Amino acid sequence: MELLIKGGTVVTASGSFEADVAVDGGKIAAIGKNLPVTANQVVDASGRLVLPGALDAHTHMAMPFGGTVSADSYLSGTRAAVCGGVTTIFDYPVQHKGETILGLVNSKKEILERDACCDYAFHCCITDLNGGEILDEMAQAVEEGITSFKCFLVYKKEGMMVDDGTLTRLLLRARELGALINVHAENPDLIDLRTEMYLKEGKTSAWYHYMSRPEFVEAEADKRVVHWASHLETPVYLVHMADKEGLEACIRAKEEGHTVYVETCPQYLEFTCDVYKRPDGRNFVCSPPMKGKESQDALWTALKSGFIDTVATDHCPFQSYEKDWGKDDFTKIPNGCAGVENLYPYMLDAANSGKISFERVVEVCATNVAKIFGCDNKGAIAVGKDADIVIYDKDKDFTISVKNMHSDYDHTIWEGKKLHGYPVQTYLRGKLVYDNGNFVGKPGMGQYVKRSHK
Amino acid sequence: MELLIKGGTVVTASGSFEADVAVDGGKIAAIGKNLPVTANQVVDASGRLVLPGALDAHTHMAMPFGGTVSADSYLSGTRAAVCGGVTTIFDYPVQHKGETILGLVNSKKEILERDACCDYAFHCCITDLNGGEILDEMAQAVEEGITSFKCFLVYKKEGMMVDDGTLTRLLLRARELGALINVHAENPDLIDLRTEMYLKEGKTSAWYHYMSRPEFVEAEADKRVVHWASHLETPVYLVHMADKEGLEACIRAKEEGHTVYVETCPQYLEFTCDVYKRPDGRNFVCSPPMKGKESQDALWTALKSGFIDTVATDHCPFQSYEKDWGKDDFTKIPNGCAGVENLYPYMLDAANSGKISFERVVEVCATNVAKIFGCDNKGAIAVGKDADIVIYDKDKDFTISVKNMHSDYDHTIWEGKKLHGYPVQTYLRGKLVYDNGNFVGKPGMGQYVKRSHK
Amino acid sequence: MELLIKGGTVVTASGSFEADVAVDGGKIAAIGKNLPVTANQVVDASGRLVLPGALDAHTHMAMPFGGTVSADSYLSGTRAAVCGGVTTIFDYPVQHKGETILGLVNSKKEILERDACCDYAFHCCITDLNGGEILDEMAQAVEEGITSFKCFLVYKKEGMMVDDGTLTRLLLRARELGALINVHAENPDLIDLRTEMYLKEGKTSAWYHYMSRPEFVEAEADKRVVHWASHLETPVYLVHMADKEGLEACIRAKEEGHTVYVETCPQYLEFTCDVYKRPDGRNFVCSPPMKGKESQDALWTALKSGFIDTVATDHCPFQSYEKDWGKDDFTKIPNGCAGVENLYPYMLDAANSGKISFERVVEVCATNVAKIFGCDNKGAIAVGKDADIVIYDKDKDFTISVKNMHSDYDHTIWEGKKLHGYPVQTYLRGKLVYDNGNFVGKPGMGQYVKRSHK
Amino acid sequence: MELLIKGGTVVTASGSFEADVAVDGGKIAAIGKNLPVTANQVVDASGRLVLPGALDAHTHMAMPFGGTVSADSYLSGTRAAVCGGVTTIFDYPVQHKGETILGLVNSKKEILERDACCDYAFHCCITDLNGGEILDEMAQAVEEGITSFKCFLVYKKEGMMVDDGTLTRLLLRARELGALINVHAENPDLIDLRTEMYLKEGKTSAWYHYMSRPEFVEAEADKRVVHWASHLETPVYLVHMADKEGLEACIRAKEEGHTVYVETCPQYLEFTCDVYKRPDGRNFVCSPPMKGKESQDALWTALKSGFIDTVATDHCPFQSYEKDWGKDDFTKIPNGCAGVENLYPYMLDAANSGKISFERVVEVCATNVAKIFGCDNKGAIAVGKDADIVIYDKDKDFTISVKNMHSDYDHTIWEGKKLHGYPVQTYLRGKLVYDNGNFVGKPGMGQYVKRSHK
Repeated sequence: MELLIKGGTVVTASGSFEADVAVDGGKIAAIGKNLPVTANQVVDASGRLVLPGALDAHTHMAMPFGGTVSADSYLSGTRAAVCGGVTTIFDYPVQHKGETILGLVNSKKEILERDACCDYAFHCCITDLNGGEILDEMAQAVEEGITSFKCFLVYKKEGMMVDDGTLTRLLLRARELGALINVHAENPDLIDLRTEMYLKEGKTSAWYHYMSRPEFVEAEADKRVVHWASHLETPVYLVHMADKEGLEACIRAKEEGHTVYVETCPQYLEFTCDVYKRPDGRNFVCSPPMKGKESQDALWTALKSGFIDTVATDHCPFQSYEKDWGKDDFTKIPNGCAGVENLYPYMLDAANSGKISFERVVEVCATNVAKIFGCDNKGAIAVGKDADIVIYDKDKDFTISVKNMHSDYDHTIWEGKKLHGYPVQTYLRGKLVYDNGNFVGKPGMGQYVKRSHK
Repeated sequence: MELLIKGGTVVTASGSFEADVAVDGGKIAAIGKNLPVTANQVVDASGRLVLPGALDAHTHMAMPFGGTVSADSYLSGTRAAVCGGVTTIFDYPVQHKGETILGLVNSKKEILERDACCDYAFHCCITDLNGGEILDEMAQAVEEGITSFKCFLVYKKEGMMVDDGTLTRLLLRARELGALINVHAENPDLIDLRTEMYLKEGKTSAWYHYMSRPEFVEAEADKRVVHWASHLETPVYLVHMADKEGLEACIRAKEEGHTVYVETCPQYLEFTCDVYKRPDGRNFVCSPPMKGKESQDALWTALKSGFIDTVATDHCPFQSYEKDWGKDDFTKIPNGCAGVENLYPYMLDAANSGKISFERVVEVCATNVAKIFGCDNKGAIAVGKDADIVIYDKDKDFTISVKNMHSDYDHTIWEGKKLHGYPVQTYLRGKLVYDNGNFVGKPGMGQYVKRSHK
Repeated sequence: MELLIKGGTVVTASGSFEADVAVDGGKIAAIGKNLPVTANQVVDASGRLVLPGALDAHTHMAMPFGGTVSADSYLSGTRAAVCGGVTTIFDYPVQHKGETILGLVNSKKEILERDACCDYAFHCCITDLNGGEILDEMAQAVEEGITSFKCFLVYKKEGMMVDDGTLTRLLLRARELGALINVHAENPDLIDLRTEMYLKEGKTSAWYHYMSRPEFVEAEADKRVVHWASHLETPVYLVHMADKEGLEACIRAKEEGHTVYVETCPQYLEFTCDVYKRPDGRNFVCSPPMKGKESQDALWTALKSGFIDTVATDHCPFQSYEKDWGKDDFTKIPNGCAGVENLYPYMLDAANSGKISFERVVEVCATNVAKIFGCDNKGAIAVGKDADIVIYDKDKDFTISVKNMHSDYDHTIWEGKKLHGYPVQTYLRGKLVYDNGNFVGKPGMGQYVKRSHK
Repeated sequence: MELLIKGGTVVTASGSFEADVAVDGGKIAAIGKNLPVTANQVVDASGRLVLPGALDAHTHMAMPFGGTVSADSYLSGTRAAVCGGVTTIFDYPVQHKGETILGLVNSKKEILERDACCDYAFHCCITDLNGGEILDEMAQAVEEGITSFKCFLVYKKEGMMVDDGTLTRLLLRARELGALINVHAENPDLIDLRTEMYLKEGKTSAWYHYMSRPEFVEAEADKRVVHWASHLETPVYLVHMADKEGLEACIRAKEEGHTVYVETCPQYLEFTCDVYKRPDGRNFVCSPPMKGKESQDALWTALKSGFIDTVATDHCPFQSYEKDWGKDDFTKIPNGCAGVENLYPYMLDAANSGKISFERVVEVCATNVAKIFGCDNKGAIAVGKDADIVIYDKDKDFTISVKNMHSDYDHTIWEGKKLHGYPVQTYLRGKLVYDNGNFVGKPGMGQYVKRSHK
């Protein structure tokens, strides 16, 4: 055996137990009490939790947006990932009109092959069917392991929106291929109308970013997506759910037996729209924006009750000077915040404080993500899975600061957040990549995750 | 090691994988690929599923009811259990007015210590608070591992019903103790009224058993229980849910974050009320009765979507001659049907045919039952758990018949049901108790399961 | 013509218009612009509203309750009625076990024939089916014009409660007869349990009257009634609806096409449970108690949107010294408050301030009551109807005080309430009975209203 | 007096009664028993119903559509109207891009001044805000009595659709002006997508008109409109509601206190989508199409329960040869059917057969329409209102046929429909215009109805 993690408490989505974990060939070979094996490396995990590495289903590394590029390169972003216990990221390359899926994805793959510090998969964002060719190409993409595609119902002026007809064609085509469509649901017309109105009235602070896309503007689009998916009997995955009314529509659909997956993000669980009233409100600008307390409470309730399927980050940080572009005009603030390194620590802290169970955190941050998106070797401490393992110290106190993060950004919305409990080691397919505060892996260690379809 | 099960596919609630399972001291010691261990006994499970033994959360062995006693003794009932892959049963001793919980339970324990072929736990049915003393005694019962109690909202004339005030006191007391209240929800007044009406009209066939307690008569009580539990913020467990409207109320409560557990039974998933029109309709008489297709569909949808927490049997068979008492008067038919040996095979057949996943069957028949009811060593193939293991052959065809069952009853509602896939072996804490059609254990092997509370 | 009311604005449920109203033989003979008729008496109503007299569908005059008798005799109560614009009251005689409907009603009729200052009808409260005889007698009662019956789901210890079986039999029997069942819905078990608990804890103030029967305790019973009526497809009338959750159940039933009528009372529209924290909180004690703001808002919304069918008073005042019995024990406070003289002025003030339309007030206080309860000659300013007419001055200011009321009670919960607009005259079948502050009718003028059935 | 209608039964939305109706100066002067007046003309209405003329809130006369013009000219259409008891029509002129409201409406007014056989009002269809100028002009239009405006969420390719931003601006502007927005709600993207798909598959029969815009395609848009109107707290009026799910959303909004008006049409109450399977299915093509039985049942339930506010026709007939254009391609069938002459007779027949009350028919066909749209002198038999009166013979049998209609079209979807009861006379402001089968009025008699706003 190459690695033996001894005496920890293994956490799986369906239960926890004390056991050793033996790793061989990058995979979990055995789990047991006092495993009678020898190993090159033996790690004492007694008193610690042994968790599957998280899969962050929603990241935007080096993404061109708002006149710049998101602050984390694939290298720094994946480095930050493993330092926060994320061992697989999903990137969202965005198609330019006319571009092919594989052309686009391969261009990203090339960079990641060189730079990735964690494993990686791709959801491809479709903005244009290229006259229908994209629907054909989807079959090939699925063969290549790209089994989920995203579309925006928003960003109409930016030319990224798809209309309901295109959404529908994608949903039907994905069902045919056993693939999945992820949807960013907000209503573009209302956002544009309200934005124009506020600007005309001279209301330009970050607060009006929220006001131009409040709860009901997101909810309409959520409800519309659920409507189409339910009536067409196609699965669908809603990214970054942030409002109560939309969430309720998803729960109703689940009740009726429809396959509607719901993702939310740590920022919606931690912050409310009140942050936009802060002097540094612009740093919290992302889309959809944080919502009111009622929505936040509903998200927590749904998370605990099992109605939210995944938690991911929508990691898309920008530098302070870029955020400052929108000091006097919220429309000029690049949309997005940091998160990939905070996802797992934040959620595990919630478990540590009793707000939710550790099993449930493992489920929404790892097991469900792997299942929903076909990462068959990922997402659990189980025999045969990749040995993507996080050792977690429930007693370690940690205060998030840009200084102790491993990204390239220069500030974080999580600054000052105190956590009780923190990951102390991360293993990627059995290799130590994060050790007590330090990245100890190497760029290029990350591998492409070819996903299966239904 | 005492036992090594090699090469099977281990199924857990959160995923399946190929692995060996090693057992030592009656517990699962290790799970792994090609485990480097020697064992007294080695079982080749290649091509087979390796499942946790099921926990049947709802059985009535040797229960006095309807002027007789249910047909399975604790011996024959637990023997049948292991032959169907159930390694733990929950018995429901029913308090007579004035009786104490421990007096009652201990009298049953004595018998089971001698006769039990599987492990056993007790839910105690409370019919009388004995002027409040029962509320006090509940604390002691919980200490003894009896952490759940049942009450009937029905059987008013029979003196077993509790009113809403008593139900409420039980719910509040149970919450205080970290215990759980199970409720049999049907409305007694309507049943009595309708029964009287049908008898007066000479409508005495088994069909009028259903007609006297149709969907809405159950639903009212379901909704009432959910109402109290939700508003009082107490957990509750609804046994043998059989109707859509009641189920919907439970789902709404879950959505609002309330802890409302829902159990259904194989008979409600397989049969509809149409069986009561058959010449042998009386054999299917149980309470609540089977319902219409719409309710059945809703149960399956909820089962698949995760809204039903457990499947249990309400095993309570009677002999043909007893059922015949009600040939000309449905009120004279003893209520109850066989099931403990059919639960797991039936549900696994559903998985084998693709109607539901194997993981979900393991979850509702084992893992969830153990979690909800505090059987900390049960319910999963996981390191440290009791080695209650079922080997399942997906290719074995089996037709249920009273002839190949291991109970004492002389007929079964499941007669003729064809199953694709069937358990071939059952291990109870590492000991083989069922082997390819034969009970190979010994009465008295079963142990009391002392349960934990929240 | 005996009477010509000239130049007023006639208000009907479906619209308002300026017109003269001519009365002959106690009935409305003609409505028109400058009616070319001569009359014995001509009243100038220019600038005033001409309204139908209200029907108070819910009063308890001289009712034995809580160890005493409600403070208004049939004389003083009906006198107060006309002084507030109510020209027909519905009394609720309560059956003692064994009593017959007609025996009971006739005993009340005798008194009213002598004393009534307004017209009167009876809902009879059934507390006991007398072994089924009452169901037979209901046919005769309906023939006599008693076409509605009430039952209590509450007052279990007091022996007035009916169980769900009796409720059901009444609903089915009433449907058969084209009659209607009115239900007082609160849950007795919870009330008794909570009351006992609070008393044991020494919590005896009026606030605990509310706490022993809060929103959810009423709502359970509301929902149960709606459940039975909907599934049995019988009409039902819920009296004094005071909580949001129960109201919502009624609205759902209406949506599904069921005939569920909802009555609320001015006290629930004006006061919240906060009144029970006042030093004189006991004076506001009635059942159901006032509820929280959320329920009150829901009642107003439903009233405006058309989901509430009637507003009535539950008039049942007690004297201060009687209310004082419960100073140190809320269970000793006789339940009930004054209202019959305040109903119409209160609701019309709401219209005058724009909160609701005058047409809607006429609808819920007069037209709907007459329609629902079969008072074919009542409830509207329409040709052929009884000339029960109220002249209303929209500009008259009035402050309610026990001093300017016409009842026999010595205090009122409405003390100090300022109204803008007030009735200046009331006509009972064409006879002036109230004139600008003074009762000018005669006891015995009131007539029995024999009601029709469906 | 110019006219006295004697001895009929006057029906108002809130009740019916026997009375004479006297008319003077074109208005209802008096209503009474044996009115002591003399009149130029006396009509014996004994045994008959005296109803207000209906207001058809939804007609398209001489409307350019689908490459032709709807078959009824303003003359023939308004002639047909009065022959069916409709005394006021609302026309829907459709703005061409760039056109002004008043320019458009005045061009129609000119024709109607010459040709109208009944009174007329205008809803103006806005397809383009002309850079915002239309929002300004709306104020002027409201002053001119055009207090409602329509927009299409459909007809995207045809250039008539407004997006959600424009819809929102219209809703907010209308609220500001006390005006109302009417919405045609179907989803254009899905219709276009499905249409294209069916055409490609060679599915071109009238059935595919329905299949390309089935229930859920309408429902999505209904729900979206209700969402915006509810959250923005603006009133809204949904035209020709034809599906259950959309209807339910409206009812929920009403329950929450929002002002959401719902209109349906006789064709949705009488026919289901099955008509599109008939050989002459194309003749029934209109948008939205007829739906399934479940939707039809929901419409009737809502109509009876008070959740539907108005019934109007969407009268828009085409000639057979025009319908035939789409024999082999449903997209070539001009959308629309006849109805203005059938509305009132059809609905009154439903009342006559007991399916609904006469009062409710008067409410939805006349009183509510007048109230919602500010026709202050219309919609009721009440003093001061315009003497728009229909005499209805409950015993007259009538079979609808194109031969006995008074339109210019050459076929009707109502052909062969047998009615029990039929209008025998129509009076427009006191003038007889329809007499027992014959139009007896004169083109040009109709007047413009200048409407009031809130």
